[in-house]
Amino acid sequence: MSRWHSHSHSTISSSAALRLAQLSSHFTPAVSSEQSSTMTKPKTSAQAAHPLTLIPGPVEFTDEVLAAMATPSQSHVSPQFVEVFGDALALLRQLFFNTDKQAQTFAIAGAGTLGWDFVAANLIEPGEEALVLHTGYFADSLADCIATYGGKPTQLKAPIGDIVTLDAIETALKEKKFKVVTITHVDTSTGVLSDIKSIAALVRAVSPETLVIVDGVCSVGVEEIRFDDWDLDLVLTAPQKAIGVPAGLSIFIASGRALDVFRARKVPPTSYYASFAKWLPIMQNYEAKKPSYFSTPPVQNIHALLASLKQILAVPLADRFAAHARMSDRIKATIASYGLKQVAFREGYQANGMTAVYLPEGVALPDLLPRIASRGIVLAGGLHKAIATKYFRIGHMGVSVTDEDREDFDKALAAIKESLAEAGYTM
Amino acid sequence: MSRWHSHSHSTISSSAALRLAQLSSHFTPAVSSEQSSTMTKPKTSAQAAHPLTLIPGPVEFTDEVLAAMATPSQSHVSPQFVEVFGDALALLRQLFFNTDKQAQTFAIAGAGTLGWDFVAANLIEPGEEALVLHTGYFADSLADCIATYGGKPTQLKAPIGDIVTLDAIETALKEKKFKVVTITHVDTSTGVLSDIKSIAALVRAVSPETLVIVDGVCSVGVEEIRFDDWDLDLVLTAPQKAIGVPAGLSIFIASGRALDVFRARKVPPTSYYASFAKWLPIMQNYEAKKPSYFSTPPVQNIHALLASLKQILAVPLADRFAAHARMSDRIKATIASYGLKQVAFREGYQANGMTAVYLPEGVALPDLLPRIASRGIVLAGGLHKAIATKYFRIGHMGVSVTDEDREDFDKALAAIKESLAEAGYTM
Repeated sequence: MSRWHSHSHSTISSSAALRLAQLSSHFTPAVSSEQSSTMTKPKTSAQAAHPLTLIPGPVEFTDEVLAAMATPSQSHVSPQFVEVFGDALALLRQLFFNTDKQAQTFAIAGAGTLGWDFVAANLIEPGEEALVLHTGYFADSLADCIATYGGKPTQLKAPIGDIVTLDAIETALKEKKFKVVTITHVDTSTGVLSDIKSIAALVRAVSPETLVIVDGVCSVGVEEIRFDDWDLDLVLTAPQKAIGVPAGLSIFIASGRALDVFRARKVPPTSYYASFAKWLPIMQNYEAKKPSYFSTPPVQNIHALLASLKQILAVPLADRFAAHARMSDRIKATIASYGLKQVAFREGYQANGMTAVYLPEGVALPDLLPRIASRGIVLAGGLHKAIATKYFRIGHMGVSVTDEDREDFDKALAAIKESLAEAGYTM
Repeated sequence: MSRWHSHSHSTISSSAALRLAQLSSHFTPAVSSEQSSTMTKPKTSAQAAHPLTLIPGPVEFTDEVLAAMATPSQSHVSPQFVEVFGDALALLRQLFFNTDKQAQTFAIAGAGTLGWDFVAANLIEPGEEALVLHTGYFADSLADCIATYGGKPTQLKAPIGDIVTLDAIETALKEKKFKVVTITHVDTSTGVLSDIKSIAALVRAVSPETLVIVDGVCSVGVEEIRFDDWDLDLVLTAPQKAIGVPAGLSIFIASGRALDVFRARKVPPTSYYASFAKWLPIMQNYEAKKPSYFSTPPVQNIHALLASLKQILAVPLADRFAAHARMSDRIKATIASYGLKQVAFREGYQANGMTAVYLPEGVALPDLLPRIASRGIVLAGGLHKAIATKYFRIGHMGVSVTDEDREDFDKALAAIKESLAEAGYTM
């Protein structure tokens, strides 16, 4: 048996196994009960009755987005599809308030996770340092990804539910030269919201050449992100959160500075599929409405992306953010009125698209989630390893928030209250 | 400017630019004309009228598959989705006549191309040798992918339109030790069909430890592949070809031997997203109907995969292959009756799911494809760099073949004949 196998690999395997066991343990209750869950017909939707998915992604989708997923076949180089893909890439810029054409938007068959490979394979060379700001589970995975490509991640960890302070970041930046700083805008495992604007300004002041990378998987479309104004270098996301499109895409925007850093690499990118060299000309061509080929794009998913972006951008983004903030405030206040505490405890640093809630004393996940599921509402268990069995998560992004006539959260909050009572909890 | 940038990178860029220019040149005609193309309502389908996509992928999809793409939101760890994903992975085995449970099927958000990264990052260690059998464009890309991960590809090239002979393969195998041999089952750029059964038997006899890797992107679902009986190690494919599902997945099956080779690696896989270490436990869990998480799977695409697999496996695979062979024979005979020649010229080594056809003397792609498009039929231009402007391609896979009542190829063959005449060609 090789040295790698006996050490690193078995570590990977056992930690993966542990994680799976943890996940299974708190999902299994829902497995048995959800079978009998009430199917809910959203009031304003033509969709078949189904359990309402109110987790931090995938979220509920609009009828128009689902119809776009069922677009009849099109050649990936047909004029019809080139138009759709080009428009989607252009509209994506608006989500980031981006007008600087040195930057480029990307939408590639894959997943949010694949965005980390793009960062690690293209913007960090083997041996280069990365400062990973840790506000939950996803920073561990991102650090793992960076190390996979030969980068050297240093994690700066906040206590569970808290942010990494600007002071701590400044101290770290002064200790050594980092090629990139990564920030999880909203860590889906804790609901902590990082202040990327202030962090980016600090990085630019203290270490001007360091690239600022934002994991916006649970933030793009619900939290304000001014890519140009805040001088960010790469923001990656996934479609199944606040963008409101089924999973299946890796979406990101890279700055001109990031692309220049890529162009100046000493060694070529160490991924084939996740290579800027392959995809940059493709995205540039499609956005210029020219057919182009490296690997067949997911035609239907791109149609759905365009359909959703058109719906999102039909109202000012400020209104969209405000609607999410209002719903978030309402959910957080209601949860507090039930006597429950949030994982993300620091006021002002709580996500607007999700809430992570500690279970009350004496109520376990298997006591609660199945009861909520039986009321037609699907919520998520915990994900942060250290506290996974002690909390649950509510996602409040997309059409469930913006279309109040659906009454999704009236149902969800009532279901939580009733289920808590059924589980023996007295408010 | 770095050394890498001034050499390898500019080579990559200029070859990519060249390829894009070539592609643009033969797709542009279709761009202008297809706008006015006849929209065709497939006779037996509920889909909106649309140009019939009869290219070597994406192909036309069934109504059931498109409906599955529009499945309302589901949690990726919900019992409903776990059931669907598990069933899809199990049914995928049947496409490969696989019953050996040491092997594992995978379906991951991405593209056919990503399958190459899985091979190069997991089954070949840096410095190890790969023998790449070249029957067209896609072997060049696969060799590029292998080199990206530090493997050493040796290409064995057939003349355009021909196969690599068993003698040539045997000679190469005896010259040095190869970690893997890769075979493009059907090269989509030429329509050449390789005899993977005989090649696999030869490899096993001459170099028993060498892994046999099959790029089945344009073959799985239309050509017979007996994974266990033929002792193959990995077959990768994409959904938008003969599996009849929209693009957006990387699909593959890996043998127990391949997984053991992976487990015995000296260094960990050099990709994060395309890592067996990450995905193997996930696939095993879903197939065992247990929820599991590494990266959010594309819920709707997996529903569509299951829908299509159920339709495909509702009839014996032998009947499906025979139907494709009959249609292929008919198309090839009709093309020959028009006086046109195939790129894949060797009898018995021609794909059953596509036909690459040389243009007649005096007719250029811009003279032909737009005329065909105006009749509601979308065909593809050339892709093999050396002959790209000299031929066109017809895809004949999936529902357009198996549902003869659609009459897709009656229309397509008539459109080709009429368009050739219009372009001034006399048969």
